[in-house]
Parts: sequence; structure tokens; C-alpha cells
Amino acid sequence: MHIQQTQIERKIHLNMNYYLGIDFGGTEIKIGIINDTGTIIIKNKYVTDTTKSGDEIVAHIADCALELIGKSGIPKSAIKGAGIGSPGLLDPEKGLLKVVTNVPQLNGINFAEGIGSRLGIPAFLDNDVNAMTLGEFFFGAGKGYKHIIGLTLGTGVGGGIILNGELHRGASFTAGEIGHMSIATDGLYCPCGNYGCLERYIGKDGIVTRFTAFKNKGIETSIDKYLEDGKITPKAIAIAAADGDKLSTEVLSETGKILGIALATLTNVLNPEIFIVGGGIANAGDLILEPARHELIKRAYTIPARAVKVVPASLKNDAGIVGSASIAVAKLK
Amino acid sequence: MHIQQTQIERKIHLNMNYYLGIDFGGTEIKIGIINDTGTIIIKNKYVTDTTKSGDEIVAHIADCALELIGKSGIPKSAIKGAGIGSPGLLDPEKGLLKVVTNVPQLNGINFAEGIGSRLGIPAFLDNDVNAMTLGEFFFGAGKGYKHIIGLTLGTGVGGGIILNGELHRGASFTAGEIGHMSIATDGLYCPCGNYGCLERYIGKDGIVTRFTAFKNKGIETSIDKYLEDGKITPKAIAIAAADGDKLSTEVLSETGKILGIALATLTNVLNPEIFIVGGGIANAGDLILEPARHELIKRAYTIPARAVKVVPASLKNDAGIVGSASIAVAKLK
Repeated sequence: MHIQQTQIERKIHLNMNYYLGIDFGGTEIKIGIINDTGTIIIKNKYVTDTTKSGDEIVAHIADCALELIGKSGIPKSAIKGAGIGSPGLLDPEKGLLKVVTNVPQLNGINFAEGIGSRLGIPAFLDNDVNAMTLGEFFFGAGKGYKHIIGLTLGTGVGGGIILNGELHRGASFTAGEIGHMSIATDGLYCPCGNYGCLERYIGKDGIVTRFTAFKNKGIETSIDKYLEDGKITPKAIAIAAADGDKLSTEVLSETGKILGIALATLTNVLNPEIFIVGGGIANAGDLILEPARHELIKRAYTIPARAVKVVPASLKNDAGIVGSASIAVAKLK
Repeated sequence: MHIQQTQIERKIHLNMNYYLGIDFGGTEIKIGIINDTGTIIIKNKYVTDTTKSGDEIVAHIADCALELIGKSGIPKSAIKGAGIGSPGLLDPEKGLLKVVTNVPQLNGINFAEGIGSRLGIPAFLDNDVNAMTLGEFFFGAGKGYKHIIGLTLGTGVGGGIILNGELHRGASFTAGEIGHMSIATDGLYCPCGNYGCLERYIGKDGIVTRFTAFKNKGIETSIDKYLEDGKITPKAIAIAAADGDKLSTEVLSETGKILGIALATLTNVLNPEIFIVGGGIANAGDLILEPARHELIKRAYTIPARAVKVVPASLKNDAGIVGSASIAVAKLK
């Protein structure tokens, strides 16, 4: 089912390489084709029909992608590969989905093989945060760097780690769980089983809970003007802060400070060149990133602290498609 | 100045490769030759004469190494390279010592070039914790693994990180500062500028301070039978614990638990295959490592927690020489 179709650019060079990006999610699927400078040539959005079987979902994605390729006018032979970014637990080497919480009929499905064989294009699977980090590495804020840590701040806090120009997936492909660094030994209990997980403080719920606690104490705020569907959300807090609401600014500043504590630990342990911060909450920009930088410099060793930048993700709305396509770029470059 | 000379083994095969290891420290220098299975052929210890100039120290080390090579009967042409492990801040790519706290006349000296040119053997420099980790990787507890985190527990807490079979040094060669992970946002102040650094809790002073606080509260302990030079030390605590002293056992158990909190964070972030724990305090063995494993399993995500082992370093007293030689093995393999 088509929601929207855009053709951002239509420069097709036959001697250029193209990559298909499939950004799979529990509610929608974004598909697009990028060229080898990371420009999206064509893209479209589709609904994830969770009433269908796993195999039907695979077939549907492939059909949508084939249709999009047809419309693009790009010969299939020029599309070097397809990258699929997905949430959940997966095996990127096998291309296998293991646990997709919201679409359990996909558990155990070989997504890369199922989609790739239907497309007749080599396809590669990885998780969405690794995809975002690869996208920034090849085509965004991470261009020219080789030691990169990508973070996504949203409901959860995710991470992707590129060291020496290679994605680090770890022994069982679960590396990058930056949201589950414990920053406080006896801190808030986290459903993951740990205490004091970063995500509990700077994930969506953590921010809203902290804000609400201050508000309930009677601290003045204009947040009621900015509610989303009647609710306090990080987006509402960011807009209120941008409009000068003091409590909102303070809660975001504290969020940045807590982020900076974790970045300092990562700086001391991994000595990266750049932290690239994306995800909805990162839209608050320097309201979060500036206190994070300040705390990082205060807490980390001087030499690695000076060597690292903290910047916002640059791909924004296209991060999903460009990132997913970048999974294929990484494999085929 | 010779303190001691041992020839552990004397099997010299002309078609074998040999590596020289120079374990440099502020009080003594250990030099040895290993074969390509990591067996020490010959070794010796020398005093670091801190009254000498930087150049004189370099010349002295080279002279000692040349003499040892002569005694070994191994032709110099069979010694493929020399590895130098050193404390302090250094540039492993240039072979340059930058800040050697206890021997400041070495600051700015190109150790690798200075020693290597005198020996007529390619020489490579790295820090002592990276050396230890490389030694375990090639010849010790880390053999056969590719994602390894080495830790040294002593006065300080150091770390070496091997990912995908390669040492990760980071953007400014300072990666691995595991002792300066903050495990408690508002925890103990650390001279590094951070709060709640792991080292403040499980480094030598942290352990002794905790022990002393309990003792001063009147908790019964037989530690006085085990003092070193009249002092409570981690070694005394470990011996007392092995002899059944309850407070000693509890303090080591708590030390292991705190270590486990940091290992859980590293497991979530890096998903390694094995933690290899060395250094003086690690001699307490399972009194520390078993609580660490328990806490790691409790706190880290199930999949990476199941994928990782926590083991003691296996090279023990030879870790310095074998590790240092391994710096050359890594470069020349």
C-alpha cells in the first residue's frame, strides 16, 4: 500500500553504483534507492501489515522494492546490493531475524535471503542503529572519520560502534547497547535486569518522568501550551525550551549532562573521534548536546576528550533509507 | 646491572622466529626472548637507573638486550622484532614516549627508534596493558578468541581491548581506560577529574580503604597475621581470605561485585568473548572473579552475558616479557 512517493532527484548515470535501502519497522517500511554519493534517487513508504504471515511480509517488501526499481528507471544490474535495517535481535552474518518483538511471525525468517532472492540482488541485514551509524559514516556527519559512535535517543537509547572504519558487532552481534551502560550502581531498576541504565534517565520515559516530577512540585512551566495529544513528550519539552520555558531548558540540560557522563566513560574506554547523536530526542540539538559536551570535557581524560566531537546526526528524515542502504555499501565497497 | 639470569629453555631452531620483549618500568626492566610459540628462551632483569639521561637509559637497554641475544646463541637474523611495553602516555605509531611519570627524562624520546636502531632489529612500542592483552591473545588465556578485553587490577585499573583480532588504540592511542569508567554518577571523586571511577573502588587504595573502614568499625578479622611490612594490602587481604578470614572474603567479594558491574556495561557495549583479568589483585582468583561473573550475568543482557567468559590471566610472572614481545608479534605476524 503506497502512502507517499517522492522522487527527490533523477540523475541516473549508467556507470554509477546504486544501493537499495529497506528501513523495516513494526508500523511502516521505507524503501529507497541511493547513488554512491548517498543521494536518494527515489523513495516510498509502505505499511507493515502485521496480519500477514512472515513469508507474505517478505514477499510484499520484495514486490514493493521491485516496483520502485521499475519506476526509478535504474537498470537492476546497476543496483549493487540491498541493505535492510530492522529493529530486534538478528544475525547479520546469516541475514536472519531472531526476535522482532512487534512482528513475531518474522522470528526465524531469513530476511536477507528471502528479500534478496526475490529481488535478484545481494541483500544484507543489520539492526537499525548500526544502519544509522553506517549511513552517517559513509554519507553524513561521520564522513572522513574512522572511530565513530552513533547514538539514537528516543524511547530507547541505542548505539552503533564503528572502529577502524569497521562496524563492531561483537561476539553475538549485540554490541552497541549504550542505553544499558550502568551509570549508577544502585540507580533506577531497568527491565533489562540492570540498575542505573542510561536509558532509564535519558530515554523518553526518563525525561518525561523527571519533567513531571518537577512540574508536580509546582515549578512554573509553560509546557501546557506545547503538549502533544495532551501529553508531555520530549518533543513538547524541546519546543517549550526553544520558546524560553525555563523548566524545559533545565530538564534538557540535565538530560545532556547525564548523556555526557556516559560519553565520558565511552571516551575513556574507546577513544573515538566523534559521537553522532540522532533520534527524536536529539532534535533538541544543543539544548542537550552542549551540556553533554561540557560534562564530557569535565569528566573524561584531557587527551581523548580533546580528540572527540559530539555532533547531531546529519541525515535526519532520510537516515533510515540511507542508513539501510549503507549496510550494503559496507559489504560491497 | 644484572640481578638475575635464567635460561628457562634452550631449544633453538634456526627455522623458527624469535621475538625480543622489553618490559620497561620505572624501577626495573625485564628483557627476554620468546620463540613463536611464546616460550621464553632466555630472560633477565635490570635496574632502571633514573639518575641517567634519557639517551643513556636507551643505550643501556639496548646494550643489555644485545648482551642477552649474544648469550642466547640465537642469531640476530632469527629475531624478527623487538616489542617494548612501557607505562605512561605514548604514541605507538611513532614509537614515541610522551609522558613517563616516574622517569620524566624519557618524555619526548623515541624509544622504538632509539632501541631498534641500536639493536639492528625493528622495534615497536606500546603501553604495558596493551602488551599484557596481546600476550594473552597470542600465547595465553585469549588464544583462539578475537574479541578480548584484558584488565590489570593493581594500584590502578588498566585495560586493553582487542576487537576482531586487532588491538583497539583509538583516535589518540588512549583507549582502554577501563579504570576510569564512571560506575556511580555522584560517586567518589577521582584525581582524573571524574566521579565514581571504577579504579577508586577496586584499585589497591579502594580495597584497602574499604577494608580498613570495616576493621575500624570493630568487625572481627585476623588480618594482623598477614600484614605486609605492617600494612594492610590487597595481597594480605587475599591471603587472609584464603585462610578463612571472613571480613577479607567479604571485601574481596564486594570488589568482584563492583568489577562485575563494570564488566556488565562493557559486555552490553562491546559484546566481547572473554575478559582476561591480571595484575596483583587478580591473584585473589575466584574470590574476586566468581562474584564478578555472578554480577555480570545478573546485570548484562542474557545473550552477550552468555557469550562472555571471565578468566584469570594465564601468563602470570612472564606476562611482561611475553606481552612486550607480543607487540612485535602483532606488527610482524
